[in-house]
Amino acid sequence: MTKASRLRELLSGDRIIRVAGAHNGMSAKLVEEVGFDVIWAGGLEISAAYGLPDTSIVTMTEFLAVAAQMDLVTNIPIIADCDTGYGDECNVAHLVRHYERQHIAGVCIEDKVFPKINSFMEGTQSLEPLAKFVSKLRAAKSAQRSRDFIVIARTEAFIAGLDWEVALTRAEAYAAAGADVILVHSKARSAKEIAQFMEHWHYPVPIAVVPTTYASATVQELHDYGVKIVIYANQGMRAAVKAMRAMFSDILQSGHASGREDQMASVQEIFALQGLGQPPL
Amino acid sequence: MTKASRLRELLSGDRIIRVAGAHNGMSAKLVEEVGFDVIWAGGLEISAAYGLPDTSIVTMTEFLAVAAQMDLVTNIPIIADCDTGYGDECNVAHLVRHYERQHIAGVCIEDKVFPKINSFMEGTQSLEPLAKFVSKLRAAKSAQRSRDFIVIARTEAFIAGLDWEVALTRAEAYAAAGADVILVHSKARSAKEIAQFMEHWHYPVPIAVVPTTYASATVQELHDYGVKIVIYANQGMRAAVKAMRAMFSDILQSGHASGREDQMASVQEIFALQGLGQPPL
Amino acid sequence: MTKASRLRELLSGDRIIRVAGAHNGMSAKLVEEVGFDVIWAGGLEISAAYGLPDTSIVTMTEFLAVAAQMDLVTNIPIIADCDTGYGDECNVAHLVRHYERQHIAGVCIEDKVFPKINSFMEGTQSLEPLAKFVSKLRAAKSAQRSRDFIVIARTEAFIAGLDWEVALTRAEAYAAAGADVILVHSKARSAKEIAQFMEHWHYPVPIAVVPTTYASATVQELHDYGVKIVIYANQGMRAAVKAMRAMFSDILQSGHASGREDQMASVQEIFALQGLGQPPL
Amino acid sequence: MTKASRLRELLSGDRIIRVAGAHNGMSAKLVEEVGFDVIWAGGLEISAAYGLPDTSIVTMTEFLAVAAQMDLVTNIPIIADCDTGYGDECNVAHLVRHYERQHIAGVCIEDKVFPKINSFMEGTQSLEPLAKFVSKLRAAKSAQRSRDFIVIARTEAFIAGLDWEVALTRAEAYAAAGADVILVHSKARSAKEIAQFMEHWHYPVPIAVVPTTYASATVQELHDYGVKIVIYANQGMRAAVKAMRAMFSDILQSGHASGREDQMASVQEIFALQGLGQPPL
Repeated sequence: MTKASRLRELLSGDRIIRVAGAHNGMSAKLVEEVGFDVIWAGGLEISAAYGLPDTSIVTMTEFLAVAAQMDLVTNIPIIADCDTGYGDECNVAHLVRHYERQHIAGVCIEDKVFPKINSFMEGTQSLEPLAKFVSKLRAAKSAQRSRDFIVIARTEAFIAGLDWEVALTRAEAYAAAGADVILVHSKARSAKEIAQFMEHWHYPVPIAVVPTTYASATVQELHDYGVKIVIYANQGMRAAVKAMRAMFSDILQSGHASGREDQMASVQEIFALQGLGQPPL
Repeated sequence: MTKASRLRELLSGDRIIRVAGAHNGMSAKLVEEVGFDVIWAGGLEISAAYGLPDTSIVTMTEFLAVAAQMDLVTNIPIIADCDTGYGDECNVAHLVRHYERQHIAGVCIEDKVFPKINSFMEGTQSLEPLAKFVSKLRAAKSAQRSRDFIVIARTEAFIAGLDWEVALTRAEAYAAAGADVILVHSKARSAKEIAQFMEHWHYPVPIAVVPTTYASATVQELHDYGVKIVIYANQGMRAAVKAMRAMFSDILQSGHASGREDQMASVQEIFALQGLGQPPL
Repeated sequence: MTKASRLRELLSGDRIIRVAGAHNGMSAKLVEEVGFDVIWAGGLEISAAYGLPDTSIVTMTEFLAVAAQMDLVTNIPIIADCDTGYGDECNVAHLVRHYERQHIAGVCIEDKVFPKINSFMEGTQSLEPLAKFVSKLRAAKSAQRSRDFIVIARTEAFIAGLDWEVALTRAEAYAAAGADVILVHSKARSAKEIAQFMEHWHYPVPIAVVPTTYASATVQELHDYGVKIVIYANQGMRAAVKAMRAMFSDILQSGHASGREDQMASVQEIFALQGLGQPPL
Repeated sequence: MTKASRLRELLSGDRIIRVAGAHNGMSAKLVEEVGFDVIWAGGLEISAAYGLPDTSIVTMTEFLAVAAQMDLVTNIPIIADCDTGYGDECNVAHLVRHYERQHIAGVCIEDKVFPKINSFMEGTQSLEPLAKFVSKLRAAKSAQRSRDFIVIARTEAFIAGLDWEVALTRAEAYAAAGADVILVHSKARSAKEIAQFMEHWHYPVPIAVVPTTYASATVQELHDYGVKIVIYANQGMRAAVKAMRAMFSDILQSGHASGREDQMASVQEIFALQGLGQPPL
């Protein structure tokens, strides 16, 4: 069973699908170990891991290398965030070929104009014309070779300051164009935009959400709205940054590294995560 | 001023040089931000970040890609851990050319046999014959093109269960062969092996240590022994793993991501680390 | 002396600079061996070497990897063709940082809209608005760290079917924005467009040309027009394709590989090109 | 049908399998276009394309990148030359995982000691102890996940100056360890070593040969000996080098690029090879 088939199976199941973001093989292994269903190879985390802004300067090659590495070392499906598709229809078709070859279960492309900026940044968030994005989705669906590969269309309508009617129009057009899942992004402080959207969503295409700013919305609440996939896109890296910063600071100030064992995995735990002693990958 | 020159300057200064390990651009930026002098692009952290064992299966290309990325996004020198040199003299000369081209300030090669296993692992730790390793060091020094590039010879004598006399013989031979720094590795629970070694070390070549198992040894104590470089090689990643595991687990169990803001950097902090709003790199 | 300095030196010399295109380390070495001054890491050859169309689907990472490899194994400067700059000002600044770090002497960006198609292809060749491209050039010049790094602005005015006056307006604006060289591209069957342009060019900024379609124009003729750089961008690969196709076909049809020694370099010649027996790179 | 299945099908067919070496996507496409059955992603050609010696300094990552690219742009199986396996059992298992993931139909590993030198070079050609190489083959076969993936064991017994009895002992042991094909390498000026070997080979495991030095041996002759796979490993690149060198030289000396159309593919032919106008890959 391929990972794309496994993702299809999850989509046709009853449960909400819980996804967490990672930025390298190690964090992907932790996502799997803890019990999430799927790993999100997200643009914010991966660009941040490279130490670069999330503004379309990290290339498809660089994003894909990380997603492929995650797949190599885990046993659950990877969904890869592919920004705006890195260009037009031709670029989108090309990325589908590449990601599918790397055993990625699904890709997500968003309806902003290339080069884009991160959805939580200040600044203009320009939407791509609907017809153009529909054309890109069609290119994506035509390019996949296996039946099971998933294409997720992400609408940034709310991010661009537009209302649920625009989001709905976009989402319906994307579903009609063949998108397997619609990701409705929102940076509201509550789940109200999502709730509004879900109230009007009657297509048989599952909806994904990313509760970063509306973090208090529970899986149960989102499930009750009818959401199928919930993605915790950046909490892992944010926890890692907090912890590393504190650890580095403590060591530098105290002049030694002892007495912090409770804030660190042991070297043996790192070895275990690396798969030492197991049959080779 | 190149970063190799900066590292030379630190070596000729009075202070002990404090180094911390990183495994990608982001963690390297944190090492710099907190105030360490140098970043260690270490084999354990980088192989672990890939999700792979530290057993010579990660290639030079893969290690170098991470070290180069760290250099791209930071302003302090990078020292790259190059395992055993990935082969013989020819491989060592080749790696020096590659790392120097990528603006790495210095490389560290160790006197174990390729393929090696991590120094803290159970299992045989075989030393390369002294003459062979000396020949590899000569190849390294001959291959560098700038005067300032640093070659660090790491002896695993203590790791292999041998005593300070062997370590000393090795270190003297490596210094005589042109090594700019000697790294004396130890996995004792105290700094006693290091203390013993330093007592007998009279060469004008600086000594580096990695206080992972003897974590309670302070910078001051190590400085008093005459150590010049102290490397906290893996605490950053170990803290990150602990934090990510807890965060993922909490989210999955509670069904939401709120109420943990004090355990996470904010999205704005991540943006700041990515260099958003700054002039492009 | 860096390769960028060497390229500056060539630009301030009396001679016309002769450049030939390559697509990997080996062909770059042949360009150097034969006596060209500079190697062109061109978009057509490199995308073709990957087996992919020259339509902005090959990423900056993939193009850069080849240019960097060429630099590693040769002693003459590399000029890298960077298409449209892979996006906007931010992407351009980013690429300059990357290419300069890889010891590339200069980069060339063209005033078409991303994603672009090859200049010799049928189809719409849309020019970027002048002000936008000027802004990208300024971003490029601001991003370079060494004084000597070269930014070449390529105008596709003639390729887009416009006349010499448009080309001139563009070229002057690019020179005023800081471009170190202007590449005037033409797919006319003779050098007449170039001649016309040169007649009106009075800026102290050198002009580069690519005589693919006007192949009968000699270096002397182009020099007489005032051209400073002549780039044979694709003849190497075109010769290689012709030769490989014939060789493969002959072997398959005859059922053996002998009797064609005069159409092949010997294995010993390949070894020599690889640098066998020389001190490591 | 995967490419590994296709290769199995060829192996169980009646015909001799004709294979030609390539070093990038373009040359791989030519191998396919002309009608060969399989593409050889060979160490000599690929290291030479990088401009580097064939002495184990090019990494697995670098070799694999080229083989994967070949697979992306062609429709026939790729067999990848993996030198000595880049280390020991652990490295071999790792490479099988990586190459299989990249859709490579089969890998070939040889019984020399890492780091190795090219088989046609002067210098010591040391064989790995038989038991060690058998252990590496077992590691390879255990690591593959699909039934159809092919592991080719290459014996360098003749290259090391040993006789057919040694070659036979090695080959039998490798076949018993699970190798799917045995490649018997020879640098004799005639096919006599191959003929001798074949006379004594009675295992139901197919034999591959590389008639570089015994180029006059025909496919028919080799088939009559019982050989199943004939690999023209380097003639493509050798023809390309000869042609590029002549083309560059002619252009530089004549000062123009015209009058050589019969020695070059046209730009339109390059476009066609790149897949322009076809549906995206």
